[in-house]
Amino acid sequence: MGSILDGENKSSVDVLIIGAGPAGLMAATWFARCGIKARIVDKRGTKIFNGQADGLQCRTLEIFDSFGFADRVWKDSNHMIEICLWNPNEQGIIRRSDRIPDTIPGICRFQQVVLHQGRIERFFLDSLKEHSDIRVERGVLPESFSFNEAEAENPDAYPIEVVLQHLSEDEINPEQSKATANGAAGSDGLFRSNMAPDDTEELLSRASKNAKAGSRETVRAKYMIGCDGAHSWTRRQLGFQLEGEQTDYIWGVLDIIPITDFPDIRMRCAIHSANSGSVMVIPRENKLVRLYIQLTTTEKGGAPVDRSNITPQMILECAQRTLAPYKLTYEYCDWWTAYQIGQRVGSNFSKSERVFLAGDAVHTHSPKAGQGMNVSMQDTFNLGWKISSVLNGTSDRSILKTYQSERRRIAQDLIEFDHKFSRLFSGRPAKDVTDEAGISMDEFKAAFEKGNMFASGVAVDYGASIIVAKDGDAAKQGDGTAVQWRDSKRVIGKPELAGNIKMGVRIPSFKVLSQADGRPWHFQELLRSNGKWRIVIFAGDVSGKTQMARVQKLGQELAAPNSFISRFTPPGKLIDSVIEILTIHSARRAETEMHDFPEIFRPFSERDGWDYYKIYVDDQSYHEGHGHAYENYGVDPKKGCVVILRPDQHVSWIGDLEDSADMDLFFSGFMRAQK
Amino acid sequence: MGSILDGENKSSVDVLIIGAGPAGLMAATWFARCGIKARIVDKRGTKIFNGQADGLQCRTLEIFDSFGFADRVWKDSNHMIEICLWNPNEQGIIRRSDRIPDTIPGICRFQQVVLHQGRIERFFLDSLKEHSDIRVERGVLPESFSFNEAEAENPDAYPIEVVLQHLSEDEINPEQSKATANGAAGSDGLFRSNMAPDDTEELLSRASKNAKAGSRETVRAKYMIGCDGAHSWTRRQLGFQLEGEQTDYIWGVLDIIPITDFPDIRMRCAIHSANSGSVMVIPRENKLVRLYIQLTTTEKGGAPVDRSNITPQMILECAQRTLAPYKLTYEYCDWWTAYQIGQRVGSNFSKSERVFLAGDAVHTHSPKAGQGMNVSMQDTFNLGWKISSVLNGTSDRSILKTYQSERRRIAQDLIEFDHKFSRLFSGRPAKDVTDEAGISMDEFKAAFEKGNMFASGVAVDYGASIIVAKDGDAAKQGDGTAVQWRDSKRVIGKPELAGNIKMGVRIPSFKVLSQADGRPWHFQELLRSNGKWRIVIFAGDVSGKTQMARVQKLGQELAAPNSFISRFTPPGKLIDSVIEILTIHSARRAETEMHDFPEIFRPFSERDGWDYYKIYVDDQSYHEGHGHAYENYGVDPKKGCVVILRPDQHVSWIGDLEDSADMDLFFSGFMRAQK
Ligand SMILES: Cc1cc2nc3c(=O)[nH]c(=O)nc-3n(C[C@H](O)[C@H](O)[C@H](O)COP(=O)(O)OP(=O)(O)OC[C@H]3O[C@@H](n4cnc5c(N)ncnc54)[C@H](O)[C@@H]3O)c2cc1C
Ligand SMILES: Cc1cc2nc3c(=O)[nH]c(=O)nc-3n(C[C@H](O)[C@H](O)[C@H](O)COP(=O)(O)OP(=O)(O)OC[C@H]3O[C@@H](n4cnc5c(N)ncnc54)[C@H](O)[C@@H]3O)c2cc1C
Repeated sequence: MGSILDGENKSSVDVLIIGAGPAGLMAATWFARCGIKARIVDKRGTKIFNGQADGLQCRTLEIFDSFGFADRVWKDSNHMIEICLWNPNEQGIIRRSDRIPDTIPGICRFQQVVLHQGRIERFFLDSLKEHSDIRVERGVLPESFSFNEAEAENPDAYPIEVVLQHLSEDEINPEQSKATANGAAGSDGLFRSNMAPDDTEELLSRASKNAKAGSRETVRAKYMIGCDGAHSWTRRQLGFQLEGEQTDYIWGVLDIIPITDFPDIRMRCAIHSANSGSVMVIPRENKLVRLYIQLTTTEKGGAPVDRSNITPQMILECAQRTLAPYKLTYEYCDWWTAYQIGQRVGSNFSKSERVFLAGDAVHTHSPKAGQGMNVSMQDTFNLGWKISSVLNGTSDRSILKTYQSERRRIAQDLIEFDHKFSRLFSGRPAKDVTDEAGISMDEFKAAFEKGNMFASGVAVDYGASIIVAKDGDAAKQGDGTAVQWRDSKRVIGKPELAGNIKMGVRIPSFKVLSQADGRPWHFQELLRSNGKWRIVIFAGDVSGKTQMARVQKLGQELAAPNSFISRFTPPGKLIDSVIEILTIHSARRAETEMHDFPEIFRPFSERDGWDYYKIYVDDQSYHEGHGHAYENYGVDPKKGCVVILRPDQHVSWIGDLEDSADMDLFFSGFMRAQK
Repeated sequence: MGSILDGENKSSVDVLIIGAGPAGLMAATWFARCGIKARIVDKRGTKIFNGQADGLQCRTLEIFDSFGFADRVWKDSNHMIEICLWNPNEQGIIRRSDRIPDTIPGICRFQQVVLHQGRIERFFLDSLKEHSDIRVERGVLPESFSFNEAEAENPDAYPIEVVLQHLSEDEINPEQSKATANGAAGSDGLFRSNMAPDDTEELLSRASKNAKAGSRETVRAKYMIGCDGAHSWTRRQLGFQLEGEQTDYIWGVLDIIPITDFPDIRMRCAIHSANSGSVMVIPRENKLVRLYIQLTTTEKGGAPVDRSNITPQMILECAQRTLAPYKLTYEYCDWWTAYQIGQRVGSNFSKSERVFLAGDAVHTHSPKAGQGMNVSMQDTFNLGWKISSVLNGTSDRSILKTYQSERRRIAQDLIEFDHKFSRLFSGRPAKDVTDEAGISMDEFKAAFEKGNMFASGVAVDYGASIIVAKDGDAAKQGDGTAVQWRDSKRVIGKPELAGNIKMGVRIPSFKVLSQADGRPWHFQELLRSNGKWRIVIFAGDVSGKTQMARVQKLGQELAAPNSFISRFTPPGKLIDSVIEILTIHSARRAETEMHDFPEIFRPFSERDGWDYYKIYVDDQSYHEGHGHAYENYGVDPKKGCVVILRPDQHVSWIGDLEDSADMDLFFSGFMRAQK
C-alpha cells in the first residue's frame, strides 16, 4: 500500500474471495480449515457494528458448531422461543390469537437465535485468526477482471486475473449510521439500505481521481468467489442477471430499547392491525427489540414513497398506530433503515466452475423470515469444501457442478416461499370469511408453521448427483444443471435401512456415548468441518457373534491394501485424513471393549497410540439420559447399516455392512486415486 | 520499574492480594466484579503452562459459570464420567471389579472435568481484563510487612503496609520443566514440587545483591489476602502455624500420551495391584493422561526416598509393574513431578479480619482427590464478596468473621477426609476377609462413593451466623470462631417450607422459564456473581386470587419507602443494586401476564423500560422439558415461600410471604442503612 505500482505488483493465489460479508467469511473459514491458500478482500473499511441481519436459523448454528463457535453465538444471542400472533378482534382491537413455537420442537439441538451481524462477523474473524493466516483485507476494491476460458479445465492453470485497488483511509469509510441516545438516530439510516444506490463506481472514481491514494496489484487465481452482495461487481463482470422483480412493499426497521406496555415485546410477534398495517417484533440481545414496520400496503402500483419522508420518527409513528391501544416509545435507538422488497434469483451461479457467485449476489428477498444471511452462508458452506477438495487433489473437478444444482434450487425455493410469506404478511387481515380481499389469519398461521420448517434450514434436501446416491432424475431434483456420472456406474443407496436418515439431507443429531470414556456427545459434534468424508458404521449389536463377524469382515475389506480408503488417501498421510470411520454400536457399553473392534476403526499412531474417539455406543448415560440413537435414526439395532456423509454433514449413501463394493464405486465416481 | 526509589514510591489500595494462583485469581475476580480497587502481585514471572492441578469439581464449575466462563472450561476440558476400580483377582492379576459414576447423578448440572491449571488461570486473566483494570503484576515480591492493630476497626484506615520489590527479568523465571517429545522429560520435575525448598528467600537475596535489579515500593492497604501457597510468606509474617503432619507417602506424577493396551486408560481408574503398589489414572485434555503412581508403601517410618532417584523413567517403571500384564509406554511426556503428602490446616485464617489467608497457605493434603485447587478457589469465593460489601459500605465488618468460621471448618473436614482416603488408596489390597493388614476393596469402594459427594463441593454446609439464619450452635457448626449477632435479635428461618433448599448450603439448580419470552434457564444461571443479595420469591400459583393477594401484599411491603430494600440501597442507585428480587411462580406461563406482578418485582428504568428478566415460571418448555422446580426444591406449588440467597448462592433464610419483618430483621443484622 502507499506506493503506486500500476500493475507491476503481481501475485497468485488459489482462491480469491470478493466481499467479506457472511457469505465471503464462511467461504474463507472453509479454506482456513482445509489449508487452502486464499485471500478475501472487501471494499468496506470496517466490519459492521450494528443493524443489518440478525436471525440465525438452527441449521446455521449446527454449521457454526461444526467450526467450533456456535457456543459463542448461543451465549451472546437472544433465544427466540415462541411466536405470538396478534390480530384484530371483532371490535377491531388487536389481541393475542395464537402462540406457536418458533423452532419446531425436535428438529435440531439448537433453536433460532438473534444476534447482530457485526458480532457474528467477529466470531468468523476470530476463528480465521485461530486456524490460518487468512485475514480480511479491507479497503480493497477489484477494478478489472479477465478470465481465460481455454484454461478452465487445466488443474494447474490460474485462468482468472483481477486488478485490485487498495483504497486510502478516506475513501473506504462511508458515513455510518450513528447510534443516538435521544431517539432521533442522527444520520441517514438509508445509506446502506437497498433503496440507496451502489457506491462501487463512486469509490472507484474517487480513488482514481486521487492517484496517490493507494496502490494497485494484479492477482492471478485458480478460483474466485463473488460474495459481494446484491449489487455484485463480480456478477456484472460475468454478465449474469438477477431474474425476478421488485415489489412496491416498503418496510422500515427500528432497533430500539422499547418502553411499552405491550405484553409480548420479548416474543417474536406478527401483529396485523385492522387498518393500520403490520408490525413484526424481533426481540434481540442487550434489551434491544427490532421492529419491522410496513410503510406501504400494496404489492404493486401504490404511490411511490418519497425517500426523504422516511425517518425513525415516521417509522415509530407507523408502529404506534399498529400497536394501539398499547403504548410504544423509546429513549435509545441503535439503528434504523428502510428497504424495498425485491425477489430475484441469479441466472447462473458459476462461470465454468471457476468463478462462483454466492449469497445476496445471487438471491434477494424480504428479510423478515430471517433467511438472507443464513442462506448466503449456507451457499458457501456448500461450496468451500468442494473447491478445497479439488485444490488439494482428492476430488475431481466434476463435483463443482453440484454447487449450482444444489444451491440455485434452494434459492428458487426460497423466492417462492418469500412470495407467499410476504403477501400474507403485508396484507390486511380479513374481517370475516366473506372478506376475500383480506388475508385469512388461519391461512397465515398455517403458512407460518410450514414456513418455520423451511426457514430452519434443516429440511434442505439436495438432489441426486455424483455425490448424493439417491434415486430419481438429477436434473429435476436440482436447478436443471447436468450433474453427470463419470464413466463409472451410478450407485444408488438403500433408504430403507435408516428410516430417519435421508440421502441429500443433513444427518440429524442424537446423543451417543464414547465407548472409551462414557462421555455423551451429540453425534453432530463429532462431524467437525475439516473437509473429511465420513463412513458411519452402525455396527449393530456386536455382543452377538454373527454380527461381530460381519463387522470384522467389513473391517478387513476397508483395511485391505487396495481398499478405496487406502487408494484415495495420499501416501504418508494418516489413514483417516480423507475418509474417517466412525462407529456407533448398540451393545451395552459396559459389556463391550474397544479393542474388540477392527483396528481400522480406531487407528494406531506411533506417537499417540490408538485413537480413542472413533467408537461410540447407543446406551444410557449417567447425566444426560439415553439418546436412543438407533431408534431415532430408524436403524435396526441388531443388524445396523453404513452411512456415507459428505464433509458438510449431508448424507450421500446408505447401505449394508456387506456393501463395501458400492462404497468403492461411490467414491470412485469423483475421487482421485493417490497411488 | 527500572529505577531505584527505595521506599519513596508510595501508594495505597483497598485490597492487596499476594499470590496469583487459583486462590488469588478468584479473589481478584470478585473485586473486579464489585468495582473494588485491588492489586494482585506474584513473584513468578509467568503463569503456569503445564502440570500442577487439574481436576475441577462440579461446584467449582457452578462458580465459574456465575462469573461467565464455565463454558470455556466445559469446552476445553476432559469430562470425567466414570471411575473404574481395578484390583487383583484370586490369581493376583488385576481386573476391573467395579464401575461407579464419577459425579453423583443429579447433584449438579455440571460434572467433574479435568483441565490444566495454566488454562484455568488464562480464563481468570481474560475475565479480569474484560471486567476491570486489575492485572496480575508479576515478578513482584513482598519484602516487609507491618500492621497497625490499633486501626483495625477504623473503616477509613489503611492499617497494612507492605514493601514490594519488583524483580528483574533474570530473577523471576525459575527454570521450567521442559516438555520433551522423546519420553525423557529433561529438567528436574521436582523443582516445583513440595519436595523442593521454598525459593522466596533465595529470590529476595538474589534481588538485593543486584541493587540495579528492580525498584521498591511501599503499598498501604485496607485489606490484604495471602494467597501465596503452601510456603506462604504472608502466613509467616503473621506468625501463624500449619497444624498437622507430613506423611511418608511419596507419589510420582506423569502427564503423558500413553501407548497402552490397558482398556480403561480414558477412564478415571484406581488400580491396586497385589504387591506392586497403586496407580491412579486421570484422563486429561489433548490425549494426555495423568498417572499418580505410588513410590513408597508406608505411611510412617519407611526408608527415606533418595530424591535423586526420582526420574520419569523410574516413575514409569513403577507404573508398569502395577499395570502388568497390560503394557504401558509413551513417546510424549508433558510434565512430571513427585510429592510427599502433608496434611495440615492453618491455626488462624485471619489477623483481626484485616489480613486473610486462603488456599494452600492454610491447608495442604494429597492431590489425588482433586481438592487442592478447588478448595483454594472456594476459600476466596467465600471471602471476596464479603470484603467487597464492607468496602463499598453496604455491610458491617462483623460479617468478615464468618470467613474463618465457614472456611476453616471446611479445611478441617477436608483433612479428615484426606486421611481416610489416602490410607485406603495407598495401602495394599486385602487378599481376603481375614487379611487385616490389607485394605478391603469393598471399604475402598464405599469410601470412594462417599468421598465423591464431599469432593463435589456441593455439599458444603455453612454453620449458623449473622448471615445464615439457621438454628443451632454457631460455634459448633463452624470452626469455633464466635460469629455473634449484633444487638438485634437473632432470626431463624423455616426449613420446612422448602425441603430441598437447605440454609447454609448453596441453592441447587433446576430449570425455570422466563415469563417474558419463554426461554428456559437453569435457575443458577440467574445468580451471577455480582455482589447482589437475592430474595427469591416462590410466588406459588398466582392464578388463584388469594395467592395473588398475598403476593401483592408482599410487593407493597417491599416497595414501601421505609422498607429494608430501600433503606439498604444507596440513594441514586437502582432499587435492585444491593438486593435483587427474583420471582418463580407456578401458574401456567401462557395464562399469566408479567404486568400483573407488583412493579418492584420487575423494576422500571427511564431508559430501558421495565425489567423483563426478573419473573420466571415453573412450566413445560418447548425444547428442554419441564424443570419441575417446585417439586425439586420441595416448595408447596400453591403457597410458595421466600428464600434469601447470599451473593455466593448459599441460602441464608427461608420464610413465608408474610415474613417481611423477619427479612428486615435478618438484613438489619449486618447491613448498613444508607439514608
Ligand atoms: C441495509 C441492509 C439491511 C439488512 N437487513 C436484514 C435483516 O434485517 N435480516 C436479514 O436476514 N437480512 C438482512 N439483510 C440481508 C443480509 O444482510 C444479507 O442477506 C447478507 O448480509 C448477505 O450476505 P452476503 O455475504 O451475501 O452479502 P453482504 O452482507 O452484502 O456482503 C457483501 C460484502 O461485499 C462487499 N462488497 C460489495 N461490493 C464489493 C466490491 N465491488 N468489491 C469488494 N467488496 C465488495 C461489501 O462491502 C460487503 O462487505 C440486510 C442487508 C442490508 C444491506
Ligand atoms: C508442583 C505442584 C503440583 C501439584 N499437583 C496437583 C495436582 O495434581 N492436583 C491438585 O488438585 N492439586 C495439585 N497441586 C495443588 C494445587 O495446585 C494447589 O492446591 C492450588 O494451586 C492452590 O492454589 P493457591 O492459589 O492457594 O496456591 P498456589 O497455586 O501455590 O499459588 C500461590 C501463588 O503465590 C505465588 N507466591 C508464593 N509466594 C509468594 C510471595 N512471597 N510473593 C508473591 N507471590 C508468591 C506463587 O508464585 C503462586 O503463583 C499441586 C501443586 C504444586 C505446587
